[in-house]
Amino acid sequence: MATLTFEKELTALLLVDPYNDFISEGGKIWGHIKGVAEANNCVPNMLRTLGAARKAGLHVFYAMHHRYRPGDYESWNYIAPIQKAAMKSKAFEYGTWGGEIRAELATQPGDIVAQEHWGSSGFANTDLDVLLKRHGVHRLIVIGLIAHTCVESTVRFAAELGYEVTVVKDATADYSHEFMHAALVANLPSYANAVVTTDEVMESISSIHNL
Amino acid sequence: MATLTFEKELTALLLVDPYNDFISEGGKIWGHIKGVAEANNCVPNMLRTLGAARKAGLHVFYAMHHRYRPGDYESWNYIAPIQKAAMKSKAFEYGTWGGEIRAELATQPGDIVAQEHWGSSGFANTDLDVLLKRHGVHRLIVIGLIAHTCVESTVRFAAELGYEVTVVKDATADYSHEFMHAALVANLPSYANAVVTTDEVMESISSIHNL
Amino acid sequence: MATLTFEKELTALLLVDPYNDFISEGGKIWGHIKGVAEANNCVPNMLRTLGAARKAGLHVFYAMHHRYRPGDYESWNYIAPIQKAAMKSKAFEYGTWGGEIRAELATQPGDIVAQEHWGSSGFANTDLDVLLKRHGVHRLIVIGLIAHTCVESTVRFAAELGYEVTVVKDATADYSHEFMHAALVANLPSYANAVVTTDEVMESISSIHNL
Amino acid sequence: MATLTFEKELTALLLVDPYNDFISEGGKIWGHIKGVAEANNCVPNMLRTLGAARKAGLHVFYAMHHRYRPGDYESWNYIAPIQKAAMKSKAFEYGTWGGEIRAELATQPGDIVAQEHWGSSGFANTDLDVLLKRHGVHRLIVIGLIAHTCVESTVRFAAELGYEVTVVKDATADYSHEFMHAALVANLPSYANAVVTTDEVMESISSIHNL
Repeated sequence: MATLTFEKELTALLLVDPYNDFISEGGKIWGHIKGVAEANNCVPNMLRTLGAARKAGLHVFYAMHHRYRPGDYESWNYIAPIQKAAMKSKAFEYGTWGGEIRAELATQPGDIVAQEHWGSSGFANTDLDVLLKRHGVHRLIVIGLIAHTCVESTVRFAAELGYEVTVVKDATADYSHEFMHAALVANLPSYANAVVTTDEVMESISSIHNL
Repeated sequence: MATLTFEKELTALLLVDPYNDFISEGGKIWGHIKGVAEANNCVPNMLRTLGAARKAGLHVFYAMHHRYRPGDYESWNYIAPIQKAAMKSKAFEYGTWGGEIRAELATQPGDIVAQEHWGSSGFANTDLDVLLKRHGVHRLIVIGLIAHTCVESTVRFAAELGYEVTVVKDATADYSHEFMHAALVANLPSYANAVVTTDEVMESISSIHNL
Repeated sequence: MATLTFEKELTALLLVDPYNDFISEGGKIWGHIKGVAEANNCVPNMLRTLGAARKAGLHVFYAMHHRYRPGDYESWNYIAPIQKAAMKSKAFEYGTWGGEIRAELATQPGDIVAQEHWGSSGFANTDLDVLLKRHGVHRLIVIGLIAHTCVESTVRFAAELGYEVTVVKDATADYSHEFMHAALVANLPSYANAVVTTDEVMESISSIHNL
Repeated sequence: MATLTFEKELTALLLVDPYNDFISEGGKIWGHIKGVAEANNCVPNMLRTLGAARKAGLHVFYAMHHRYRPGDYESWNYIAPIQKAAMKSKAFEYGTWGGEIRAELATQPGDIVAQEHWGSSGFANTDLDVLLKRHGVHRLIVIGLIAHTCVESTVRFAAELGYEVTVVKDATADYSHEFMHAALVANLPSYANAVVTTDEVMESISSIHNL
């Protein structure tokens, strides 16, 4: 599979919303995705992919959802349903544990954390695109949450913006198997150049050493 | 439903890709979507919605996919799967009937046709956003094709960019009921403020006269 | 002058980079712009304009430059000269007084602070555009620093994005009169719908009460 | 000068608005810029730079201003001064000689022509950025018209979007020496990594053969 040969200088791993509220025991949303996440082995696979990327010296980028702060939305004239939900759930509340990156997935010096995104795409109204360009990145390996919202929107935007994307299908999760299926099977194959397993992506990443 | 009260000055109808190749007998892709389109009464519903919008004096915008021209993609280093497919199918070929808007849905003086989009979102790399702003539009009523690709991407982008969106669920179509379900049921309710029928949207549009 | 009739719901005041490093005694860059700033009565005019906007109930937005943090640029393959300068000067260093908003111009509850910008435009790679749209804003009154860099780029981007802009020419400053002249006289009249004095803008803002 | 070593695969020549209306005898605007253009040897230098780029096999991109069509602006609620001027002058009128590229600078197969821009930046609301990314371009050599409007806006946007830019200062022109000075001396050195002569850029381009 041609797109699974990664050139180190052109490729970055992109973690989407690895917040405690999503993927840690006790997180606000964890209870709603736990079934699918555990069936998919999502968190261990995120850790394995991140470990492989770090070992290979790939750039590591983080696309983080807006962390809730009081007063965020009250003055808006126009709002999307997913933002109304965030307003109500106070997901990823700023200053709380739920709004922190799960500890094992934490940033290391040299990682790039893009500005927080208000909707679902890590690219929309943030500096993710320019930071990727400043580093010469053209290919993304995407892992994280939620498959049919932030992951899918981020991949759709990436494709529109000119990036080639590999989605790691067992390093994500969703509220139901139906939602995840909509993202991984119905939609993402049109926008992601490859939708692969953690084992497959790790094999490709590890071969970077030999280039 | 609050979002179905449309203020004339703030609202536009947006037609996504009403090309002959998609929705006219003899079009390149029509054969692949005909079953779902006819079950959904897609084309008649597009016509009814457009007619109601014109009668109410709403702005009418068109978001048109890139029409294939020889040599479009050959020099690209990076390409998305959906673009590889367009390259192969020569969909909406420039200068052919398939690359024209279906006659009954044709533009009229005063309509706005945005620059062609290379991917699926009518907003990505086009002037659609600025033209909406130049007209003071904040709410979109979206009809057209294909539900899980261009319609969904256009709606996801619209929500990220700050628009409130109503999707008309029986004025669209897809390759399969499963794909359309992924768009209309799994995904769009997070990004569209309303997902309604043609009858419902027409009733709301017609009430604009009385404001 | 038609554009100086401001509709309250459509208009926001936008402060560009009101950092201590720029406009407070002891700021890193203040010494370089003090002559022009004082000749222009820049800071008092910024305060007067902000006061008038608050009294009239206008939305108040802040476009803030990236605050320097160690390691920001070292991994970049591509960089602009103005960013090299920021890397060297450590302007608006995060966690320092220079990287704070001048006290009298500080935010109040309900103000909107956009994500920090890496270059000169308050719109580039930030959420400024979407936050303006979420509030229904179409007209901007722009004050702040530096006239020929961040103010001019922000106004050029605003015009491209569809906003109508009023620049307050004596509520800005620059490194030299020549630079400020390049911005205010040569360039901005093509992009700003009005370039006016603080007295003029205050008169227009105060008339909002009577609408 | 480090930035004048161009890697062939990463570099493109970008021509901004090489319309007959700007730079050909009989063009609508030629009379207004002829003095500065001829003093700068603008057109011959554009030809020399383009010739060198073609010989070296560089990608050649065109950023073309919106060509006037009747009814373009009449329905807009919000408009920028430079667009009001275009509405009045009917510059680059669609279907006329003035709205064609000057013959010697015409496109050749393989060149990329971005969507027309409504304002001054070749990037704003067009596909220029994505087409550059699809080709892996990170460095731009910019020539064309007008220095303080479209050239400067295009360079400012390029820098914000992550590109490194070389401006060829004697392959541009303006309405007055003062305007051109504002662009080339006051403003562009903050955004362009190099501002050089045609002789200098040609020497750098020709050295690409030896890499």
